[in-house]
Amino acid sequence: MTSPEAREEAVLEAVRKRRELVNEAIPDELPIQRPERLYEASRYLLDAGGKRLRPTVLLATAEALADVEPLSREYREFPTLDERAEPSADDASGRPRAPETIDAMAAAVSVEVIQSFTLIHDDIMDDDDLRRGVPAVHKEYDLETAILAGDTLYSKAFEIMLETGADPDRAVEALGVLATTCTKICEGQSLDVTFEERDDVDPEEYLEMVEQKTAVLYAASACLPAVLMGGDDETIDALYGYGLDIGRAFQIQDDVLDLTVPSEQLGKQRGSDLVENKQTLITVHARKQGVDIDGLVDTNDVEAVTEAEIDDAVAELEAAGSIDYANDTARDLVAQGKERLEVLPDNEARELLCQLADYLIERGY
Amino acid sequence: MTSPEAREEAVLEAVRKRRELVNEAIPDELPIQRPERLYEASRYLLDAGGKRLRPTVLLATAEALADVEPLSREYREFPTLDERAEPSADDASGRPRAPETIDAMAAAVSVEVIQSFTLIHDDIMDDDDLRRGVPAVHKEYDLETAILAGDTLYSKAFEIMLETGADPDRAVEALGVLATTCTKICEGQSLDVTFEERDDVDPEEYLEMVEQKTAVLYAASACLPAVLMGGDDETIDALYGYGLDIGRAFQIQDDVLDLTVPSEQLGKQRGSDLVENKQTLITVHARKQGVDIDGLVDTNDVEAVTEAEIDDAVAELEAAGSIDYANDTARDLVAQGKERLEVLPDNEARELLCQLADYLIERGY
Repeated sequence: MTSPEAREEAVLEAVRKRRELVNEAIPDELPIQRPERLYEASRYLLDAGGKRLRPTVLLATAEALADVEPLSREYREFPTLDERAEPSADDASGRPRAPETIDAMAAAVSVEVIQSFTLIHDDIMDDDDLRRGVPAVHKEYDLETAILAGDTLYSKAFEIMLETGADPDRAVEALGVLATTCTKICEGQSLDVTFEERDDVDPEEYLEMVEQKTAVLYAASACLPAVLMGGDDETIDALYGYGLDIGRAFQIQDDVLDLTVPSEQLGKQRGSDLVENKQTLITVHARKQGVDIDGLVDTNDVEAVTEAEIDDAVAELEAAGSIDYANDTARDLVAQGKERLEVLPDNEARELLCQLADYLIERGY
Repeated sequence: MTSPEAREEAVLEAVRKRRELVNEAIPDELPIQRPERLYEASRYLLDAGGKRLRPTVLLATAEALADVEPLSREYREFPTLDERAEPSADDASGRPRAPETIDAMAAAVSVEVIQSFTLIHDDIMDDDDLRRGVPAVHKEYDLETAILAGDTLYSKAFEIMLETGADPDRAVEALGVLATTCTKICEGQSLDVTFEERDDVDPEEYLEMVEQKTAVLYAASACLPAVLMGGDDETIDALYGYGLDIGRAFQIQDDVLDLTVPSEQLGKQRGSDLVENKQTLITVHARKQGVDIDGLVDTNDVEAVTEAEIDDAVAELEAAGSIDYANDTARDLVAQGKERLEVLPDNEARELLCQLADYLIERGY
């Protein structure tokens, strides 16, 4: 057994290497062209950074499926599952064989472009000033440009996903995954907005919202390689489930970190979710335990809250068992997600997907 | 020869009949589901009306291509071109034949859904209060909901376009047309925004902007039946060109009507484009003729402008030949668009597409 620190180091290294390749591919897939201001605004957040976790999940899943050593193949010419398959009934009937390689990097960039579109529009909706350490797009540019930049990324993601070179049957299915994923993200965001006005959201509802708003894009990232490379339905479903599980765990961990990580390390005020009355799995659980959530912190101003107030609030949430509940829920989801990976060949890339799942709930920020 | 009035009556009747069918199909393709507020906001403008010109172009093009009598076939089970074709090399090799029918109505609803998404986001960008006689979505609901409603329609349009049942090769191509069309609409809208700050836009640039912002969705509507039904590239290109031509003519006519139709009939102040300093083909032409466009109307307030001021401005634009120039340009585009239809079989539906083109520049509002 390796130590948690060594495991985290290995995951970060794997993410870093894939991130570099994704960062190289983004300008190729989304060049700055006329009208320049629109494309600059579209690229602004993508160029500002980001861990590229979703593309990493996609690329590592592709490697696990193809049963190749991590980083041993060009993602732009990635083997499908057809090379190894027995000739199918279709092949016997003379139907042209599916292409033997696909552009997995195009698919990876496509999901990152979708993520970036949702961030731009979310920041407008929440009127957030900062994102990834830089001004939000509607602050750096203006509202018009930010709406249009998001809309441009939206269609570009579909254009890019159409460039994988996959068999048309599979390309159609992949486009369907992308479209329904976007619809669900909108539905989840809409639920999140209506939750703000409700004080009776229960944990199951909250997790359903998180599934739609956040986890479906992880699910899409995990299952798209199987769709594009010709995996069977069982594999596609299992990988989709893995993505849903780790995506929900990721969001829950975000909620826990907001309360437990010092402000300096977090890059924003610790406990800001509480101050801004944002519902989290922790608060919806605590409310059910009888905690007066609205009374936990007096101010609504992150500038005015004191560390002592946050400490008291966290202590109350801890006493109600709500932080443990969130940690347990995230841990169960990750365990469940890892189990689903047994549908994959036992290889190094699959191990990486397990480590990625662990990392999402072990990370400190 | 029939009279212009009789021709217009025939076109309006043809549009009306297809509009009724499209209006019936919209709730089927886009049911109000959970979260209800999101779907109600998404349906709000679609339910408020609209001529459904783009779906009409799509459905009539499908009829012309299939060489069937207008309104004689179910759009939901519309014949492809394969029924009549000789067995192709693929068929001989045992590849499953392409399906013999497609759901043309799904494609028609998809383009109308895209149109509705762009209207919702455009109204936010222009902060317009009214649309189709009802409050804009961000006024009736709120900014958050309007952004999300547009985003939902965006992905729904792709989901709906995936439901035509077309051969996967063709479905992939159709999705590509839809995605690049959306990208171009965003680019056109972005150009339009930058034009507001420039006083040296020339007619060619203006027409390029109109092509991207408005005409490409007509082009997509006209070519998609050929893509989905298995038309050849020459047919697809000709129909795309027809759509670009009539789409540009449509926008130019809108610009002319804004100056020439009495306010009561227009449903808004005549000359509002001039008052709001909106560039049109007329103003960019007049500026090149030396007309002081910014001095044409003193006020920037549509409430404050008088009919006499508008009359004087229109007289000056007429004297510069700019209204004639716009009318001539629109007429040339329509003539060119109609010529492109010669790629189609000579039938009643093709005649309707010609009449539709004429209607776009002969209509009084």
